Parts: sequence; structure tokens; C-alpha cells
Amino acid sequence: MIPTKSYAVHSATDALAPWDFERRDVKPHDVLIEILYCGVCHSDIHQVRGEWGNSMYPMVPGHEIVGKITQVGEHVKKFKVGDLAGIGCMVDSCRECGQCKSGYEQFCEKGQTVFTYNSRERDGKTLTFGGYSNQIVCDEAFVVKVPANLPLEKVAPLLCAGITTYSPIKQWGIGKGHKVAVLGLGGLGHMAVKFAASMGAEVTMLSTSPSKEADARKLGATHFVNTKERDQVRAQRNKFDFIIDTVSAPHNYDMYLNMLKTRGAMICVGIPPEPISLNGFLLLGQNRILTGSSIGGIPETQEMLDYCGEHNITSDVEVIDIKDVNEAYERVLKSDVKYRFVIDMATLK
Amino acid sequence: MIPTKSYAVHSATDALAPWDFERRDVKPHDVLIEILYCGVCHSDIHQVRGEWGNSMYPMVPGHEIVGKITQVGEHVKKFKVGDLAGIGCMVDSCRECGQCKSGYEQFCEKGQTVFTYNSRERDGKTLTFGGYSNQIVCDEAFVVKVPANLPLEKVAPLLCAGITTYSPIKQWGIGKGHKVAVLGLGGLGHMAVKFAASMGAEVTMLSTSPSKEADARKLGATHFVNTKERDQVRAQRNKFDFIIDTVSAPHNYDMYLNMLKTRGAMICVGIPPEPISLNGFLLLGQNRILTGSSIGGIPETQEMLDYCGEHNITSDVEVIDIKDVNEAYERVLKSDVKYRFVIDMATLK
Repeated sequence: MIPTKSYAVHSATDALAPWDFERRDVKPHDVLIEILYCGVCHSDIHQVRGEWGNSMYPMVPGHEIVGKITQVGEHVKKFKVGDLAGIGCMVDSCRECGQCKSGYEQFCEKGQTVFTYNSRERDGKTLTFGGYSNQIVCDEAFVVKVPANLPLEKVAPLLCAGITTYSPIKQWGIGKGHKVAVLGLGGLGHMAVKFAASMGAEVTMLSTSPSKEADARKLGATHFVNTKERDQVRAQRNKFDFIIDTVSAPHNYDMYLNMLKTRGAMICVGIPPEPISLNGFLLLGQNRILTGSSIGGIPETQEMLDYCGEHNITSDVEVIDIKDVNEAYERVLKSDVKYRFVIDMATLK
Repeated sequence: MIPTKSYAVHSATDALAPWDFERRDVKPHDVLIEILYCGVCHSDIHQVRGEWGNSMYPMVPGHEIVGKITQVGEHVKKFKVGDLAGIGCMVDSCRECGQCKSGYEQFCEKGQTVFTYNSRERDGKTLTFGGYSNQIVCDEAFVVKVPANLPLEKVAPLLCAGITTYSPIKQWGIGKGHKVAVLGLGGLGHMAVKFAASMGAEVTMLSTSPSKEADARKLGATHFVNTKERDQVRAQRNKFDFIIDTVSAPHNYDMYLNMLKTRGAMICVGIPPEPISLNGFLLLGQNRILTGSSIGGIPETQEMLDYCGEHNITSDVEVIDIKDVNEAYERVLKSDVKYRFVIDMATLK
């Protein structure tokens, strides 16, 4: 077993605090990764605090992991010691079903997707522990290569915020000739703007905060709509081929559906906990589409990282000491971060 | 002007009764059609009774029209006197915008789609009057050819119920290898089963009435699910590539979304007047799709009729005298018809 340091909680009301535990030994297909940076995802907060009703403790959160390979199992082919490596939301799945074989492990038909933390290994027993830790053991099949030309702290958020926005953009063929609106400028939203713009789409930022206009334009948006201004909203009617909706708070779906062209699609990567209410005639009248998109598969995650390496795309981050992670959570809840906190794991002594 | 007989209402509380009016003279691109049969669509009832809040009176309903050409304008190319012809939900549009030029006149970007009744001509003034009448004048561009090998009374409902279900099946590429569920066995549902089965899909009928099983199988369904039986519903989880939802009464969207495979689509051709409520995580968790589909364009309507001619597909109908149309409305409201009333216009003296 491999002694490991981390920040963990032991109940829904705990603050994150240092915790030592042991990772499994490196098996023939495993790699051991020294974690250098780990992003702070809003879903970490939901799960740490038991807000999704599925929390298991002790919990070591973190699924935006980048680091360096420090040990490889005897059958490992993809990596050698010293390589850069990343782990996102998943660390295993059945690997045999149609979805797993097609590279969509998040949709494993046997329901055996193992998440990076707050999940159980395929043995049904062992809890998984995430990236707020100094090292992690993982089958190489769920580890991706990280381009060498990018600043590592800015790469970490790509493993969740990046793939979550890249995947629908690719799956729906979004690019040149498309008018794309991005709803919400946060960890997901700022990546959606960067990806859509980099692929040639004409991007509009939809936001309730006029103060975000300058940033949105810097990220790649060519238009900004203040959704509190009725006239501006009305002018967007039947306008967009796609809306990428990154908002997890309750919001007015009808207002946005109305902005879609005939056969346009609103793709939700965030969903509020409350049921969604919508006027069905907005779907029927123009053959509009409402859909969701859930993270992305492992081959797609590798493709995304390669794309980011080629096009020099990274996340905008604020690097923090791990001792400040509880304070960072409070700031995430106030949307007071541009646009992702990333823990410098060298600060975990 | 052309003296015309019809059944009409003059207010939302009227019963349909005989009414004489005049159609415009035949212009160079117009044809005059002697109406032989006209289907009774549920939307006729909504509009006659002012239930959609957009009713204009006097109103002559009817948009499932088949008949014979009795006169042609000097520039008419597609038809000659004696030809069979059909008119569906639309009689005009701008004809110049991208959608109209692509054959999707129902989505005219200038909002100039002129419906067959309860609508105004492009002059913004003249009311349109529908198919519960002995003849109709229409630009040949909005008139379709009717295959000679099909019984005409069974063709009439294809002009609305037919195209409304055919269009999404074609647009979404539904066919061999797909598991398709049809929700609701009425005018639309019975056509959806016929079309989907004829295109090679494996069709399941979802219904609350076990009494409909035998009929569903005769129409082409290979499976029947009683949606009141919890075990049967549970067994459909993640099963269907597509659900064609023909129900306009309020229903449980979550139950059906759960039956869709990863990336499966629920296509609504009926929508309840109340807002739809749904659990957004059912869309996000499996990248599922909720969409709507609105009738179909003129070229697609012609394609559908040609397809029906080749594959011998028609609607199951009950032919009535026009004097019995008010009684038929009451039976439609009780779903007491298999599966469409069609008025024999020879009974309009």
C-alpha cells in the first residue's frame, strides 16, 4: 500500500482538513502519478456537503488532476516515468459494453462507471479518493497524456470543465457558420466561449452582469447580451444555432428556447436541482431541441487535450494553497473567481 | 368570385352549420379543386371553439383535403383538369426566404406562412377558409399530387396526421436498427406506427389502454407496453432510440425520458397547453434529447404521399356525412374513433 496525504472531509458539515490514507499498490496496468495541480469544481462542493444525497465519507474530492508519472506497472504501454499525465472524472468502467468500447465510458451500459472520488471501485466496496492529494494510482486506460507546451496549472480544469464543454461542441458539430450563445460565464462558460470561438463559431455571451462584457470579449465572444434588458433579449429571437447552457441555478428556459433558430439546440451542461418548466410549443413550433451533455469519454478527453495543445487553449485560473481551499469554496459560491481555482499540490506537506 | 358551400361557425360557441361564401377567381397560378373528402383533425375542434385564443370567425375548418382539379390557371404546370390533388395545413408563404426555398414553408422566416383556414392571406386581410366545403382555390405551389392507387377517403388524413408523423421520422433518419416507441394511439399515433414499421424500425406502442394492444399490433407494433403497469414501465429503461409522442394532454415526461437510450430523442408532435415539467438530469445524464416537430413542408408532403402510394399506406378512417360533424367532434374528444373521421363531401348539398 502507498501512504498518501490529502485534504478530506468525514461528514457533510466538516471543513476540509489534512488526512493521511493509503492508495493501492501499483498493479501491472496501473500508473502512479505525483499530483502537481488539482482544480476545484463546483461539484466538489455539492458532494463534500452532501447536497446531492449520494455522499460517502471519508471523501477526498478533486477530479481535475494533472501530474507526473512516478511509477508504472509492468504492462503499462502509454506512459513512462517522468511523463505528464491527467485524470478527469472517471477512473474505471466495465470496458466491455458498446458504450465503453466506443469510448463513452460515462455511459457504461452496465452502470460500472467508477468516478474519481465519492464512488466505489468495481469490487463494489473500495471507496475512491480524488485529487486533493499528493499522489494517485490509476489504470493507464483512464489516464490521459498532457501536452508539454501548456502551463500545467491552467491545464487541470480542462479535465472536467474543459471536456464538459468540448464534448457537446464536437458531438453537435459546432463550428464555422454557426451562431452560438453561451449562457453563464464561470468555470464551464469561459471554456465554452474559448472552444466555440476557436472552432470558428460566432459567439454571443448571455449574462445578467454587464460587468462581464469586457471579459467575455477577451475570451472570444463577439457579442454580449444583457439578459436583464428586455429589448436586447427580444432582438435575439430565432437567432442561434446553439445555446450552451452552463447554469445550474434555476432560470427561464422559455426565454432562451425562443432565441433558437428552427432546429436549433439548447445544450445543457448545467442543470438546476429543481424540475425544469418549459412551454412545449417553443420546441414544437420551430422543431427546436433541448438536450443535455454529460462530461466526455476518455478518447474524447485525450482529443480535447491534444486540441488545446495545438491551439494553445487553457483555463483562466487562480492558483491557491491547499490550506485556503475552504475559503476558496466560499468564493466559488459567490462566483468570485476568474474562472477556476486550482490547488498547487506542492503546498500539501 | 366562385360561390362555395361549406359548414362553418360564426363564434366559439356555435355548432357547425351550412354557410355559403365566395372563393376568389382562379388566378394564373391557381387551381380550382372539387373537394371529395376532408379529414377531421383535433386541431379543428380547438380552433372552432376558440381554445387556442387565435380564432377568427366566420371559420370554415378543415386541412386534410383531397379532391379533383376542375379548373387551372393559364400558367399552371403541375396539374390538368381531372387530376387528383391534395391540400394540407398551408396554402401560401413568402416563398423567398431560406426556409421557404428549402421547402420548409411552415418555418417561413418572414412569418408569412398562410394556413388553410383561420389565417389571413398575405394581403393581411382576407380570411382563409378550409376544407369543410365543396371547392377550394389555391396556388398550385401549395397543392400536392395524390397517388391514383389509394382509396381517396383514406388519403385525406395523410395531409396533416400523415405528414406530421412522417416528417420527424425522415428528419431524424428513423428506420432499420432503431427501437421506436409511439406514445398515444390516435390519429397521429396510428400513422406514426405505420410509418415507423414500414421503414424497418422495431415499434413499441406505449399506452394506458390494454384494449389497444391488438390494434397496435395490426398497425405494425411488435411490442405493447401498458404504461399503467409499473413493472412494464421499469423494463423499458434506457431502451428506445426514439419516442414519438403524439399526446396533447398533460403527461409524465420524466417517465418517458427515462425510457430513452443514451442520445435517444423524444419527439413531440403533440404538446399539452400547460407548461411541461421535467427533471433536467434525465437529459444531462445520458445526453438525451427532447424536441418537437411541426407538420412538414410541401416537398416533404409530396414525398410522403408518393411513399404512401408505393407502400400502400393510408389512414384508418370512419367516413361520415357532413351533417354528423358536430357529433363526430364529441366522439373525437372521447377518442371514440379508429382513427380519423373523414367527411364525404358529396354529402354537402
